[in-house]
Amino acid sequence: MPEIRKDPVFGRWVIIASERGLRPNEFRLGSGPETGGYICPFCAGNEALTPPEIYSLTGEKGQWRLRVVRNKYPALEDSGSAENRRSGIYDRMDGMGFHEVVIETPEHGRQLETMPTEAVADVVRTFMLRVSAIKKDPRIKYVMIFKNHGRNAGASLLHPHSQIIAMPMAPLRVMQEIDGAADYHQERGTCVFCDIVKEEMAFKRRVVAENADFLAVTPYASRFSFETWILPRRHASHFEEMPAEQAVTLAEVIKTALGKLSVSLPDLSYNLIVHTMPVQEPSAEHYHWHIEIMPKLSHVAGFEWGTGFYINTVSPEDAADILNAGKQFKI
Amino acid sequence: MPEIRKDPVFGRWVIIASERGLRPNEFRLGSGPETGGYICPFCAGNEALTPPEIYSLTGEKGQWRLRVVRNKYPALEDSGSAENRRSGIYDRMDGMGFHEVVIETPEHGRQLETMPTEAVADVVRTFMLRVSAIKKDPRIKYVMIFKNHGRNAGASLLHPHSQIIAMPMAPLRVMQEIDGAADYHQERGTCVFCDIVKEEMAFKRRVVAENADFLAVTPYASRFSFETWILPRRHASHFEEMPAEQAVTLAEVIKTALGKLSVSLPDLSYNLIVHTMPVQEPSAEHYHWHIEIMPKLSHVAGFEWGTGFYINTVSPEDAADILNAGKQFKI
Repeated sequence: MPEIRKDPVFGRWVIIASERGLRPNEFRLGSGPETGGYICPFCAGNEALTPPEIYSLTGEKGQWRLRVVRNKYPALEDSGSAENRRSGIYDRMDGMGFHEVVIETPEHGRQLETMPTEAVADVVRTFMLRVSAIKKDPRIKYVMIFKNHGRNAGASLLHPHSQIIAMPMAPLRVMQEIDGAADYHQERGTCVFCDIVKEEMAFKRRVVAENADFLAVTPYASRFSFETWILPRRHASHFEEMPAEQAVTLAEVIKTALGKLSVSLPDLSYNLIVHTMPVQEPSAEHYHWHIEIMPKLSHVAGFEWGTGFYINTVSPEDAADILNAGKQFKI
Repeated sequence: MPEIRKDPVFGRWVIIASERGLRPNEFRLGSGPETGGYICPFCAGNEALTPPEIYSLTGEKGQWRLRVVRNKYPALEDSGSAENRRSGIYDRMDGMGFHEVVIETPEHGRQLETMPTEAVADVVRTFMLRVSAIKKDPRIKYVMIFKNHGRNAGASLLHPHSQIIAMPMAPLRVMQEIDGAADYHQERGTCVFCDIVKEEMAFKRRVVAENADFLAVTPYASRFSFETWILPRRHASHFEEMPAEQAVTLAEVIKTALGKLSVSLPDLSYNLIVHTMPVQEPSAEHYHWHIEIMPKLSHVAGFEWGTGFYINTVSPEDAADILNAGKQFKI
């Protein structure tokens, strides 16, 4: 059973999940079914290798085209209580929660940016559906949706997939982001993300994709080279409450942004994270859900760890220029 | 000239330093003088390849045994002002500050843990001296001392070295740590780090090194597998005010902790960061300087990015057992 521990100085939560250390790593074992070595549990035909299916979409020939399964090596498990326990100066709770995997396609070698828009929209709709279902459990306070792509981003399997972790508390940085936005709202009376959308639309130079509903920009204070945010143009605090028809326009912008990133950064690794309100909270005027994509260029990390202070050697304006010109970036 | 930009949501600072992107990376170019390819600027005999020396210590035969030089590819530079400027919704300031490199030894293939204790104590004393000299400049608010070792930790050069970055503001996470400690102090009337020292001395199971002045532990809520903190036993908020004789006892504990880590984690990469008070602040009862060592096991990062929520697959108790038994850890 995983355990959740709280750092007594920071208040940050850490999941201690020893069994998750046992999960296979395709990047070390040799990749995909074609190698004849490691068998990919996410490929069509290997359904028996995953835990039971939670949800799926059926394609043209009766075969699944998207599956949601429990993570075989979960960070959190559906048992125990969400109660805080103190031992001495330390706080901990059971590692209660859900950890699901969204297998985005049966095709091992596909990527989001090369999938049809409708297939990416399916992924978006699946995220919304799963969050809406999971949040009926009142023990769940936050649902994290994220995708680690590539070995430099911490992925252990190559086959296109995302993850959903539902947890009994909101992570510290989520709360700090919401608190920062609340401070801004109190000071200026506007949503900081709405203001960012306006400012970036006017400035133009950091825009890498846009349509009627969404805007993708390299943010002003980008922590990482080629960091890219996707923001809804209209204010909304909860991702899962997005109007259904926007799944398609969001898919378009995701595809464009990832497509440009994969052209400029060969062998792209990235983390994609949906930032949204804690699921049991009501709609908020001060917070605005969005997606952050953080490319992981190799050998670049270091200084930022433990400091919260970042050095980025590519300005967001240069990054947007490179992305929009379709140029390859030489690290 | 680098620029410092503030994220309008979080308040976190980012250095945008394009020229730093030009620095060579020994891990990509082929390592060390022995390869005949890339020439190491930190090796004895290659002094002309570094910017002018700021400080040095002379060894037995009149040769230097430790050098401090300006970073050739600085994140911050000694020009411009530390003034905040606003443009629209965004804040920025000149990338004013100092960025120094401490070349810890003339020997290319050495490591801190295999250096004589007295040589490591020299490194510690040099850190103290440099911080004390730098903080005379009232524009400098924080001095970050850190060491990136190994390619997975973002190091670009193999030759043993640390870095000192002096900056015109305290990084957000530094302030959050100090605020967290202040909250704890207000609630309980004690320093949270003093309480950690007491708790860990009593519990014993997370201790990996200790002597009369310092304690090294795998912290209760370790974010990373084999994360190790070194804490002074006696309360002190400012690293640079450490009693001079403790440089030797600190060096002993650093050597022991890194020595154990390098046995258990072959090909160890790590970030080592000194956490200390902003230099212009008076001594504080609620904050306690310490060192955090974060081993970077390959392919493990991912989820924590942008979430502040960590999954650690090796409990700190297991990590301490493995380190203290001198066992090799199989990733």
